[in-house]
Order: sequence, then C-alpha cells, then structure tokens
Amino acid sequence: MKLRAKPICLTAGGKPVVILTLNDAEELGVLSLGRVKLSCGGKTRTCIVNTTKKILKRGEIGLYDEVTDFFGVSAGREIDVEATDFPASMTFIRNRLKGRRLDSDEIREIVQDVTRGNLSEVEITSFIIALEHQGLNLDEAAALSTAMVETGETLKIDQKLVADKHSIGGVPGDKTTLLVVPIIASYGIAIPKTSSRAITSPAGSADRAEILMDVNLEIEEIKRVVKKTNGCIVWGGAIRLAPADDIFVQVEYPLSIDPLLLPSIMSKKKAVGATRLVVDIPLGRGTKVKTIGDADLLARDFIELGGRLGIKTQCALTYGEQPIGHALGSALEAREALEVLSRKKGAPDLIDKACDIAGILLGMCGLPEGRKKAAHAITSGKAEEKLREIIREQGGNPKIKPDDLPIGEHSSDITAETGGYVKWISNWGLVEMARSAGSPKDKGAGVVLHKKLNSQVKRGEPLLTIYAKHASKLQRAEKIFEEQMVVAVGEKMEMMLKEVKEVPVPEKAFILER
Amino acid sequence: MKLRAKPICLTAGGKPVVILTLNDAEELGVLSLGRVKLSCGGKTRTCIVNTTKKILKRGEIGLYDEVTDFFGVSAGREIDVEATDFPASMTFIRNRLKGRRLDSDEIREIVQDVTRGNLSEVEITSFIIALEHQGLNLDEAAALSTAMVETGETLKIDQKLVADKHSIGGVPGDKTTLLVVPIIASYGIAIPKTSSRAITSPAGSADRAEILMDVNLEIEEIKRVVKKTNGCIVWGGAIRLAPADDIFVQVEYPLSIDPLLLPSIMSKKKAVGATRLVVDIPLGRGTKVKTIGDADLLARDFIELGGRLGIKTQCALTYGEQPIGHALGSALEAREALEVLSRKKGAPDLIDKACDIAGILLGMCGLPEGRKKAAHAITSGKAEEKLREIIREQGGNPKIKPDDLPIGEHSSDITAETGGYVKWISNWGLVEMARSAGSPKDKGAGVVLHKKLNSQVKRGEPLLTIYAKHASKLQRAEKIFEEQMVVAVGEKMEMMLKEVKEVPVPEKAFILER
Repeated sequence: MKLRAKPICLTAGGKPVVILTLNDAEELGVLSLGRVKLSCGGKTRTCIVNTTKKILKRGEIGLYDEVTDFFGVSAGREIDVEATDFPASMTFIRNRLKGRRLDSDEIREIVQDVTRGNLSEVEITSFIIALEHQGLNLDEAAALSTAMVETGETLKIDQKLVADKHSIGGVPGDKTTLLVVPIIASYGIAIPKTSSRAITSPAGSADRAEILMDVNLEIEEIKRVVKKTNGCIVWGGAIRLAPADDIFVQVEYPLSIDPLLLPSIMSKKKAVGATRLVVDIPLGRGTKVKTIGDADLLARDFIELGGRLGIKTQCALTYGEQPIGHALGSALEAREALEVLSRKKGAPDLIDKACDIAGILLGMCGLPEGRKKAAHAITSGKAEEKLREIIREQGGNPKIKPDDLPIGEHSSDITAETGGYVKWISNWGLVEMARSAGSPKDKGAGVVLHKKLNSQVKRGEPLLTIYAKHASKLQRAEKIFEEQMVVAVGEKMEMMLKEVKEVPVPEKAFILER
Repeated sequence: MKLRAKPICLTAGGKPVVILTLNDAEELGVLSLGRVKLSCGGKTRTCIVNTTKKILKRGEIGLYDEVTDFFGVSAGREIDVEATDFPASMTFIRNRLKGRRLDSDEIREIVQDVTRGNLSEVEITSFIIALEHQGLNLDEAAALSTAMVETGETLKIDQKLVADKHSIGGVPGDKTTLLVVPIIASYGIAIPKTSSRAITSPAGSADRAEILMDVNLEIEEIKRVVKKTNGCIVWGGAIRLAPADDIFVQVEYPLSIDPLLLPSIMSKKKAVGATRLVVDIPLGRGTKVKTIGDADLLARDFIELGGRLGIKTQCALTYGEQPIGHALGSALEAREALEVLSRKKGAPDLIDKACDIAGILLGMCGLPEGRKKAAHAITSGKAEEKLREIIREQGGNPKIKPDDLPIGEHSSDITAETGGYVKWISNWGLVEMARSAGSPKDKGAGVVLHKKLNSQVKRGEPLLTIYAKHASKLQRAEKIFEEQMVVAVGEKMEMMLKEVKEVPVPEKAFILER
C-alpha cells in the first residue's frame, strides 16, 4: 500500500514507530503493535505500528523522528507499506514466556533488537517478566552479559590486572568508592571505576565524585586519566556501556522487579575490562538482600558468572542496617570522604568497610596483607594524595579542602525527645528525608546523622541535622521524621512494631540502583 | 513545580500521558513511566510520564490530547506538577507477579484503572503475563468478568430466558451462528447475539451478517429488534460491552497469549444478560484446543464460571479439523448460510453442527427434543423466515436471494494434480489463502472448498476456487497453495510430515478471535 509520509516530530525512545489510521491498518491486516515494512528511496525498515482515529487522514502514515530521520523524508513523500512478521526475537521471547530456556544466539538477537528499538514496550516487558518468574540460569546470564557488552562501547586499558568494585546498593551514605579507588590506585593497580547517579537514593557514587571533579568523561579521556593515575571515578551514563540495560531498567522501574541485576552489573564490569572484582552485598532490613542465606546464593551467582566472563570475582557481605558514616547527600558525603582521607575526622565504619574491600582487591591482585596495606594507604596520606591526583586529572581542584565544599545554607537539628540508646534507624526514612530536603538535585542538601545504632543519647541532644537549599524543604524533611519511625530512642525495644487494623496498601522501598 | 502546557495533538489511546524534559523529570524525581499529579484551574489528574531530550524546552510539559482535553488548556498555560505514587492497582499487579492471588476489590480497581487509562502498557502487560503464567482461579475469573461488565455498557432484555451461543473459534468458515440465531428465535426465545469481526481469520460472524444487514446497532436499537423478532446478530464492537477487554487484547496480540479467554467471553455474555449459554469448543490441529482432555478442562471452567455469573452454561466439543461447510470469506459464507436456510443447497456438517448447538440451547430453555425441533426449523423454512424478519428489522433486504450477494469478480480454480482421496486439509493454509485473496477487507473475496476430508478426487478435478476483487490477489493465494501443504490428495498417508534439518523458526498460528 502506498501512503503519504506525515512526520510528527516526536521521538519514540529509539523505536521506529509509525502511526496508521484504523482503516489503513485494517486494510493492511495489522493491529496496533504489529509490524509493517516501509520502503522508500531504496531503503527498507521494519516499523512498529500504532493506530489512531485522529490526527491522520486515510492514506497518511505518521512517522516518529526515528523513522523520518532513517528515510530522510519530508511531509507528503510516498512510502510503500506492507504488513510483515514480528521480528524473530519475538518468537524467542514467546518461547521463553512458555518456560523454554534461550541459547546464546537467541539472547544476542533479543538484545540487539532491544538496542535497535525493534521491540515494543509490551514485548520487552514480557521478556523481563519471563526472566523474573523463571529465573535466569548461568548460561543465560552469561549470554545476556556478553550480548550487552557487544552492543555497547568498551574500555581497553593496556594492563593485565584491572581491578573494580561494585556495591549492589541499598545502604545510604555509602561513599566507600571514594576511598577504595585511591587506595587501589596508590598501589599501582588500575581501577577504572564507572559509577551511577542516584535513581531512588539521595546520591550515587557519580554524584558524590562530581562534587570534587568532572565525571562526564568520554572513553579516550578515561584512558588518559587511568594511564596517568591508575584510577578514575566517572559517570557510567556518559559512555554507552551496555546500553540495552538502560532500556531494561525503564521496564523494571514501574514493576519494581530487577531480574537483570547480575548481567547488568557484570556486563558493565566486563565492558571496562575488569579482571579482578569485589562485589559488596550489604545485608539488612533496608537493603536488597535480607538474610545471609540469600546473600550467599547471590554471591555464588556473582562468582560463577564472573568466572564465565573471565573476571575473577569475590563478594563481601557487609553490615547494612544503618548508613555508612554519617552523611547522606552528594556534597555532605564528598566532604565526609575527604575528611576521612585527609585524616581530619574519623568515621570508623566507613574506614573499616573501605579497608575490607580494598584489602580483598589488593589480595586478589597478588599483594599479600591487603587489608593492612589498605589501612596504611589511608593513615600515610597516600590515598589522599592519589585522590587529589585523580581530581586534578578529571579537571577538579586538587587542593580542595573539605570545608570548601558548599553545603545547603539552611539547616535544622532534630533532637531527642527522650534519653536512652538509639534502638532503631530506618534507612528508608533517612533516604526519604534527604530526598525531601532536595537530594539528589540540590547537591548541598541532605542529612547528617549524629547518633548511630546503640549510641547513648541524652534528652535534647541532636540526633541529626537536615541541610537544604530552600528553608521550605527543611520542613518537608522534618515532617517525614515526625510521621515515620526514622530514629527510635529508648531503654528497651518495644516489641510491637506496627498494628495492622485494616487492609494496608503496602509501600515497599524498591532500590533500583545497581 | 510550575510548567507551561504544550499540547502535542496526539492521543495515547485513552491514557493521560505527559512529556517532560529529562531535566525537569530529574528535578521532580520521576523516571519515564512514573507518575505526576497535574493541577490546573481547580482540576487535578494523575498522569503517566514520558521523558524526552527533544521537542520540549525546560519548563514545558507536553500534553497528549487526553490531558489537554481534561484540563481544557491551551499552549503556555501554567500547570502545577508534582511527583506522585503509582496507582494502588499497580501494587496489586506487583503482588500478583509475585504469585499472590487477587481479591475482587483489587481486581475491580485494576480493571477500572485499565479502562480509565491509568496504567501504562508495561503495567498492563505485567498483569496479563502474571495471569498467563500462574493461571486464574475461579474467584479471579469471576471477579474479572464482573469488573469487565461493570465498566462497560449492558443490555437489558425484559425476558426471563435469554439464550446465547459462543464459539471459541479456530475453525474457518464457521457460519453456524447465522443458522442458530433464527432457529432459537423461531421458537420464541430471545437470543440477542453480539459477534466479533475478523482479527486473524477471513471473516467473523459480524462480517458475515453484515453482508445481509446492518450490524452496527446501538443498545436501544438492539432492544427494539429483539423485542420484535426475539433475535439479532450485531457487531459487539459497536457497543461498549467490557471495554477493558479491548485493551487487554492489544497486549495479548503481540505476545500470542490469551489468558483472559474465559472472563473475556463470559463478561460479554453477562453484559447482554444471557441466562442460557452453549459454548462451542472446536477440537483439532488448527484450533485452539488440540485434545479432548484439554477441551474437557476448558469446558469445566466455562460451566463453573457460568454458574458463578448466573449463566447456565453447557459446552459442545465439535470436530474442527476442516472448515464448516465449503465457503471462507464474508459474502461467500453469508451466501452458503442463506442457501442452506432456504434449502437451495446442502452442507451436511454445517446443518448438523447448527442443529446440535441449537438443540442443546432449546433443551436448556425447557423445550424437549431440542435437536429435532432445530432440524424442523430448518426443513420447515421457519428459520429462514425468522432470519428474513431479523434482516428486515436490521435494515437489510428481507427478500434477498443467495445469488444476489456480490462475490469477487475474479476467480481461479485449483485442480488436483493426482487422483485419490483428500487426506489432509490445513485450516491455517486456507485462512492464509482467503486473506491473501483479500479477506476480510474485500467482502467478496475468499475460498470455496469443493472437496472435503476423505472425498474422492479425480486427477484434474477442482479442489477449490479462489475469489478476489483484484486478479493480482488470486496469484498470491495460489502461491500459498503451492508453497504450503494446504490440501493433500493421495492413496495413503505419507508418514513423514516434515524433515527438520536445521534450527527452525517456528511459525505457529495464533487465533485471537474469541
């Protein structure tokens, strides 16, 4: 059928979508989300059909930007349109929905079609849910990781040992990366760290690092920085490592499911050429993994998948029932990390965790007594020196002092209404407070926790301080503290946590960062 | 956040979709497919977020027609936008994905949100797949049927007994409805039959009936026709019975799954007020149900669900390995039905099937010896008379003769290359031929099968005739006959059906009609 092009100046997120009138769609024999093959000027492209009762006249075909640009057509140009089959990858997905495992060729085809925009949201959703329901086996996870690497950019560091660390997230205030990277690099081992920005948290590692330096580096710049300093801390989103994952995340978010956790993480590690990896699995109520048993299962999967991909992998199961250190929010966290590295202030849990993880990595890279070496890097000031080198190479001020980092102008203390011990800290409540105060958008906003679990507290003593750019946002954060049991102080733990009197609508935290 | 409206003149299929720049979305703390609450001029509406890097400037919000119309705003109007939670129904769907059964309140909420456009395609897909994977129990199927009835229009016929029949489809050429409706109505029993149009077949019952009369009747017109004649044959799509189902179908189509078969059918029967129902379950290779065991399971579900909804239900398991009668295609099928009713030509299998189904229905309505009565209605001409009454009331020509019905001008015979017996007929191959010839769009196009299973055939005798509006379409249908084993003639059955030498891409027929 010949139809006249009508560009509609909208993008469909990379998908080649066309709009047909219901009548033309019927004549072609396709329904909405079916496929048509467009031919024009010697080019051919299979497109996803949407139908409409409005905006188009019969004989017109609405083209999203992806299609307009592909054909380079303008309004009125005649396009040949015929019905065609769903892509072969859709057959594989349908089989997977029925429980059939996929082989690596089928998975590559699916991932390629996802990155090329050839699958609709309905179809990608069905793939994600099939994986969530039936689980991925190791072969599938390895094939997915590999396909996600192949469809994206990769970093080639000219070194035999390339170290990396990753936390699966869920603990607020975890600025461990800002310590581990300079520790490892100070021992001459390459650690090209890519990090994410906050999605559901107050700050991601890339947000924290951005307070000190530019994190939007391209592949060639990363290579230069790593060559010079052995380390870097950059935003992974600025380079297209495993772009399929960015598309999968958009489906996982509304559904609050995360079946691609392993391939997503491991593909990004493979893409930067890591050969030694420590995965931090924080454990606790507010984190992704609640029990040691579950963490062991997950750790086994990481180690086995790492083996398949040629990445020697170990896992660290860490305590995650409260924030790491005291600060939540990009600038407050960057300040705390810099204070610790420059030995201005202590944060025993942060230092401990950083030394644990850096220690394991150093050991895996052939340096004995890794933990001791890690601790020495901090106390000797070598880690601080290395971080300042990295800051300089990534365009920051290498002389920056913790107090130079701007934090929210407005602040408010929340004090204890009663004395006793801190019996309960809600990670999720603190996250909500920091986000209400303006994180992650207002970089200076956040929360500083003065008392941690089991600390003694006197009546009237400050439990925490909220920082914000706008005074009104302080009140929103205070309100959350009042409404929720964010920090509980008492002599003994009350056994009743919550009465359920009527059918509740559960509001569970879903941690998408990975 | 205050944003300026920018209507984009596109509909989102009833969904309230807005577009934000990535920066504004980040500032609000929402991702694509998240939700924002819009307030403007005293009105408030929760909308689904899409994000864009193009077409919008920061500070603008793109509004699909659904949102523009709701607020009645024009370009530049200031709208207050804040992040908000996913609708509660999304929590229920997430729970269902994890295997938790839904209660009737939860299901009602989901169906309401689906019809109101409050759920995205990703979210509706996850609901459909959860049902497909884990199956619906009877409580859920009943609650879904009821909710789908409540969210649509209903027909209230002022009679105690309201009969109905339904075929789950999959057999081409099944014009049984055109016979059953007048038979039942001729005995004074109300049968307000709503039918569908072809989706993946050459003709639906509504398409067949439309050859003889107007089928786009509104509720009040249907009531008038049924009051006068006891029967009607109308297109269900013209009235909004169970509109949620139309939305679910859009997701089921690309995935080739059909978990809502039962609630979809039964909700439409409930919506027309049926109290006695026969469900025809055709059995055979090309149909939805392949074995008697599977058909028994499905029949049990129909009968039990009918019981819950107050519809006394029986099922008929019918032979579906070849077309019913000889004709495929709207006009050819209407002609065949009229020929049979006016006793001009026989079609033993069609008459047999119509008498079986009408007989069961008459029996369920308290008339003994139903099958005999059904056969009598045909032989006595009472059924023909009743059909002509219905045709008149639905605006058709009550005097129409079979030969008056226009069929495709161009035709082509396909003859047997060898003599013997018809050993194999591919329903799916015949469907593809009829559709290539122009069905369902060209109403006169289709295929007439001259030889049915086990018929004796001489070399050179015509096996079938293809009819088309355009001669070029005949060739497309002929090509399908050549390429596929549509009709196989032989003295004995060859045991080898197909050699599988390399990894095949399976192409299975998916029958969406229901």
